[in-house]
Amino acid sequence: MPQKRADNRVAGETIIGIDPGGEVTGFGVVRRAGSGVEMLGCGVTRARRGESVAGKLSRIFHFIREQINHYRPCCLVVEDVFYGKNVQSLKAIGQVRGVIILAGALAGLPVHEYSPREVKKSVVGRGDASKEQVQQMVKSLLGLQTAPSPSDTADALAIALCHSHRPNYMIS
Amino acid sequence: MPQKRADNRVAGETIIGIDPGGEVTGFGVVRRAGSGVEMLGCGVTRARRGESVAGKLSRIFHFIREQINHYRPCCLVVEDVFYGKNVQSLKAIGQVRGVIILAGALAGLPVHEYSPREVKKSVVGRGDASKEQVQQMVKSLLGLQTAPSPSDTADALAIALCHSHRPNYMIS
Repeated sequence: MPQKRADNRVAGETIIGIDPGGEVTGFGVVRRAGSGVEMLGCGVTRARRGESVAGKLSRIFHFIREQINHYRPCCLVVEDVFYGKNVQSLKAIGQVRGVIILAGALAGLPVHEYSPREVKKSVVGRGDASKEQVQQMVKSLLGLQTAPSPSDTADALAIALCHSHRPNYMIS
Repeated sequence: MPQKRADNRVAGETIIGIDPGGEVTGFGVVRRAGSGVEMLGCGVTRARRGESVAGKLSRIFHFIREQINHYRPCCLVVEDVFYGKNVQSLKAIGQVRGVIILAGALAGLPVHEYSPREVKKSVVGRGDASKEQVQQMVKSLLGLQTAPSPSDTADALAIALCHSHRPNYMIS
């Protein structure tokens, strides 16, 4: 539906947030609705048993492409999760982030990133907020009956919400 | 030329080696020829001024895809360059490696990796060999008149040569 895509882009309405991970990569999609923000969807893709690195990166790349094709966001926002990790985790997450950013770029989307601290500060008001506090605020801000599960989807929605709070997010 | 590709794959002859880098990413392609190995080509892609991360990853992805389409290798080999780097370098190289491995995977190629130490040991005989020693051995092994330049191409050729020295490389 190219028309829908064009509309979303002009309105700058729909944001896809991604929480990258070697084991689980989550996504969450939000859209402005009146004075608030609503959730359009969320989900995860998980590592498969015995999967090669190349297989993992292909799986995540195709998964993110599918979500972009389905939700037609105006931009892609990915968490910058590099600190306090060991070299092996840094390697795995760096590679995963590479294919996520590429999926956004190949779809012509602007790509933004925020640190976990920026996301927590934006959504909860405190950069050192707990995972549970983030989940509760995501539930509250999106008017959900229960906190999004698994937690990777709440993190991804928080990343998208963080970007929606930027006054100029429609421009970038 | 699908025929050429099929031939190369069956023979397991042609290997593309990649030296990933945030600033410069080099490639080198080698093929068995009689009792030796010959160079088919090499080159680099460089960062552009003011390039975004998404732009960089797209550029490298398309560059590697072009080389795969042109040389039709039977496998892709990439250097594992993660140790002794700071967090920012790890992040940049991890992302670059992600899109390189993805380019190989999307083309249906097996992807292999070797550490810099394994590459040096395989090509020069010593894991602590200098960059100049690697360049000289690459020149000698491939029967070149001059050492490949820039050095990123020599590194990429060394990675491909390292894999060609494995007795079972045609299987993987």
